[in-house]
Amino acid sequence: MIESVKTRRSIRKYKKQEIDPNLLNDLISTASRVSTIGNMQVYSVVITRDSEMKAKLSPAHFNQPMVKDAPVVLTFCADFNRFSKWCEFRDAKPGYANFMSFMNAATDALIFTQNFCTLAEEVRLGICYLGTSIYNPQQIIDILHLPKLVFPVATITLGYPDECPPLVDRLPLEAIVHEEHYCDYTREVIDKLYAYKESLPQNQQFITENNKNTLAQVFTDVRYTKKDNESMSANLFEVLKKQGFLSSADVIG
Amino acid sequence: MIESVKTRRSIRKYKKQEIDPNLLNDLISTASRVSTIGNMQVYSVVITRDSEMKAKLSPAHFNQPMVKDAPVVLTFCADFNRFSKWCEFRDAKPGYANFMSFMNAATDALIFTQNFCTLAEEVRLGICYLGTSIYNPQQIIDILHLPKLVFPVATITLGYPDECPPLVDRLPLEAIVHEEHYCDYTREVIDKLYAYKESLPQNQQFITENNKNTLAQVFTDVRYTKKDNESMSANLFEVLKKQGFLSSADVIG
Repeated sequence: MIESVKTRRSIRKYKKQEIDPNLLNDLISTASRVSTIGNMQVYSVVITRDSEMKAKLSPAHFNQPMVKDAPVVLTFCADFNRFSKWCEFRDAKPGYANFMSFMNAATDALIFTQNFCTLAEEVRLGICYLGTSIYNPQQIIDILHLPKLVFPVATITLGYPDECPPLVDRLPLEAIVHEEHYCDYTREVIDKLYAYKESLPQNQQFITENNKNTLAQVFTDVRYTKKDNESMSANLFEVLKKQGFLSSADVIG
Repeated sequence: MIESVKTRRSIRKYKKQEIDPNLLNDLISTASRVSTIGNMQVYSVVITRDSEMKAKLSPAHFNQPMVKDAPVVLTFCADFNRFSKWCEFRDAKPGYANFMSFMNAATDALIFTQNFCTLAEEVRLGICYLGTSIYNPQQIIDILHLPKLVFPVATITLGYPDECPPLVDRLPLEAIVHEEHYCDYTREVIDKLYAYKESLPQNQQFITENNKNTLAQVFTDVRYTKKDNESMSANLFEVLKKQGFLSSADVIG
């Protein structure tokens, strides 16, 4: 099996070394061999190399230092604009200003993103996913001049690794696999599946640092709170609407 | 670069040969090395091998023959149920019954899915993505007993290839890449980017078969219509709500 997939870790510190534009183009081009709905390729990627542009993008990603420090930042977008333009220029009426089309384009864009990441890591580049793209989409849209029917769904920082952090823990296989039917989790099963994660010194430290009683509370009370999720949900809908991905038919009852 | 990525094609015809459960487990386990938001791993996969279960799933995928014919069908799900159960059993109040959390979990699930596909193809298995999971989510939810906060986002049919279809065309690199800013597409640029696709005999044939004037019209009038997209959007919101992924704060204005 592909060795670089087995031993991968997110990289947040990069060497000063630039990335050869030909290599980057080859990686993106090969990544586009990934499956795509109806072969529509409803995605785009914006390449940021310019340091002023990185500085502008940085606040949208909560000033995570990788954005300014990485030689390349890639913003992967769900994109029904190009396809709709093609339709319009070909005497066809595009019907993609709706939520279904956003989900199709987001799916296309995300599997394309991951295909790119695998290829990049296999040539010893390091990547870090920034989940923040959908937290502050409007800022990114403004900075990158994204038109209607284009929406940022993933940001990747990219560069040659200048660190080799330890492999991060993962849940055991049985936590994520269900045979034939979904089998819901009892307390006993949860205890077993999360025992290793909860036993790790770094996770114990998280609890202490955050002055909490359990690791789960670090997530619910500090890192991914109900309040933040709800306000970001409302914002996400607002920006989806503004970008033309919600039609009048999409109103939730 | 990874050769199997360069030469990949979707496979719709499979040999009768079964897939060794240990191999499948290894692939899923290695795939879980993929990036995941906050290391929450908010995804699950349901493995379908049973032929009765495949027959039940088939209509949800518009009876595409791969569902019954493939030795294995995999339904990849956005899953905040397991994580929320863990929180509840650890004296923490989960706040993941909202759209933001759905998008986070869908992102996690989709990049996990693609990582799995790359690994599977590299050991000479063939895969086909079925985009239909989000067209008929309720049927899949019922058949696989998916609880609240679990939502199917991708289905893959998997098996040893019994065909070798030609490589499918892709748009040139410049169609999908933007440097620093998104550069919108003029008619001249669209003409150039779509010239090769439009010149292909199989695409000319699509136009004739469907009695249309342009290839784009095959998409807008037959394959991905406004009417279908809008009714599926409304359905998608309804099922997201039912699965607990829309809160009162998520109502679109």
